Amino acid sequence: MIKRLTILGVGLIGGSWARALKEAGAVGEVVGWGRDAARLSQAQSLGVIDRAEQDLAQAVTGAELVVLATPISVMAGLFERLAALPLDDLVVTDVGSVKAEVVRMARAGLGARFSRFVPGHPVAGDEKTGAAAARADLFQGHRVVLTPAAETDAAALALVRRLWETAGAEVVEMDAAHHDRLLAATSHLPHVLAFALVDCLAGGEGGEEILRYAAGGFRDLTRIASSDPVMWRDICLANREALLAALGEFESHLQRVKDMIEAGQGEALGELFGRAKAARDRFCTKR
Amino acid sequence: MIKRLTILGVGLIGGSWARALKEAGAVGEVVGWGRDAARLSQAQSLGVIDRAEQDLAQAVTGAELVVLATPISVMAGLFERLAALPLDDLVVTDVGSVKAEVVRMARAGLGARFSRFVPGHPVAGDEKTGAAAARADLFQGHRVVLTPAAETDAAALALVRRLWETAGAEVVEMDAAHHDRLLAATSHLPHVLAFALVDCLAGGEGGEEILRYAAGGFRDLTRIASSDPVMWRDICLANREALLAALGEFESHLQRVKDMIEAGQGEALGELFGRAKAARDRFCTKR
Repeated sequence: MIKRLTILGVGLIGGSWARALKEAGAVGEVVGWGRDAARLSQAQSLGVIDRAEQDLAQAVTGAELVVLATPISVMAGLFERLAALPLDDLVVTDVGSVKAEVVRMARAGLGARFSRFVPGHPVAGDEKTGAAAARADLFQGHRVVLTPAAETDAAALALVRRLWETAGAEVVEMDAAHHDRLLAATSHLPHVLAFALVDCLAGGEGGEEILRYAAGGFRDLTRIASSDPVMWRDICLANREALLAALGEFESHLQRVKDMIEAGQGEALGELFGRAKAARDRFCTKR
Repeated sequence: MIKRLTILGVGLIGGSWARALKEAGAVGEVVGWGRDAARLSQAQSLGVIDRAEQDLAQAVTGAELVVLATPISVMAGLFERLAALPLDDLVVTDVGSVKAEVVRMARAGLGARFSRFVPGHPVAGDEKTGAAAARADLFQGHRVVLTPAAETDAAALALVRRLWETAGAEVVEMDAAHHDRLLAATSHLPHVLAFALVDCLAGGEGGEEILRYAAGGFRDLTRIASSDPVMWRDICLANREALLAALGEFESHLQRVKDMIEAGQGEALGELFGRAKAARDRFCTKR
């Protein structure tokens, strides 16, 4: 049980963690900080946070844990401002989808306090965003990846792990660079493909007719193109290197498929489709 | 009301149409023909067909309508075999996802009987396949595209239209080439991307770990990679030209996104993602 948790950027992820911890009786007061007063007061009236603060010092004073749940581009400035406050034993964590770049920003911004920072990424989400979509069971059965650095304080790490486990998540630790390569493939690449596909189809000639004829498959395939554009812009830029590598691999794979279609190689094409179906079906039954 | 309907290739689409027509009292007997005796007898015991036949002549004798619901690569041979049977007023239709190539095969195979062929494509489906997945409401609220040729008999066209409307579908007529360009964009391209993505991720180094960490977004994005590989191989080859054009457009679009990420052009990237989200959200509320 911690007395006070402060969320910087009260959206789906921070809000859902807060709801889960409240429901479990694992936190006393939840304070929300953000730049948009209307959103903060909505989060408060929904019961996602107990108190709204627009002043960072007031928001974090007395908190045992501060969670950065903002877009990644905002985090560097927040680490610097947190380092300037008299916070003693405060533990800081984040929920960013990219870890190496966030660790780099935290090391630069937090200075001596870097050892109390626990880099984290809950591998869960929804294309719905905002505190209104927050729900206590969002992390049930999902993985949370923590990527502690060599300097990371063991007690701080244990606190963050325990609070994620309280929310029903399975906590896994790995190297930040490994996390970024893994997520570039499983999440960042698919998002880029979905955004690019929708923009390609809707923006071209006859875009309206195309969207009208799109069937259920297209609907599912592009669901993630309804995700928050700012968040995803930041993720793509923060994980640029691993994402470009994944994109390059996908492009050469797609080129091979294109060559098979062009050359009318039915057997090779059917084999590739069959292999993909088998992998997809196997992955689905595993979950 | 027609007395007898014969389905060549009893799977999800043909089976669902049969169920819908039966439920509406619009058909007397449904006969199923196929090469796999076990599958046919399963369709019969599920009540999807009334009678199973492995002999084509016996299957179609006395039928008012024959539906080709096989993979496209099998259709050319079936048109030729149907042309050789003494069938008088029989109307023939198909449910293939590509129309120009099927029309070409029908014209070549059916000869003088080509005027009684009505090319059709129900724009509905599911990654589940087979007669066991057939359901009477599959086409409710979905579009069925008919692409009659200049020679197509008006009464044959009217019959097929009425039977699709009886199944709850909205029937639209358009040019076969236009249909193929439209479907290349909305359906064939997305399927190729999903198959290529799953095969790329699962087949590379660390594929098992990647599938383990894939979150809900990946699951949705790749649902259509669980579709029937043979059917999709045939579709890709039959609609080669339009599909390659759509693939080419997508590739150059993806290249632009890649360039933005590489150059760190956050503003342009955010705009593109925002545009895609707006189009996706608009498309979703429309349905």
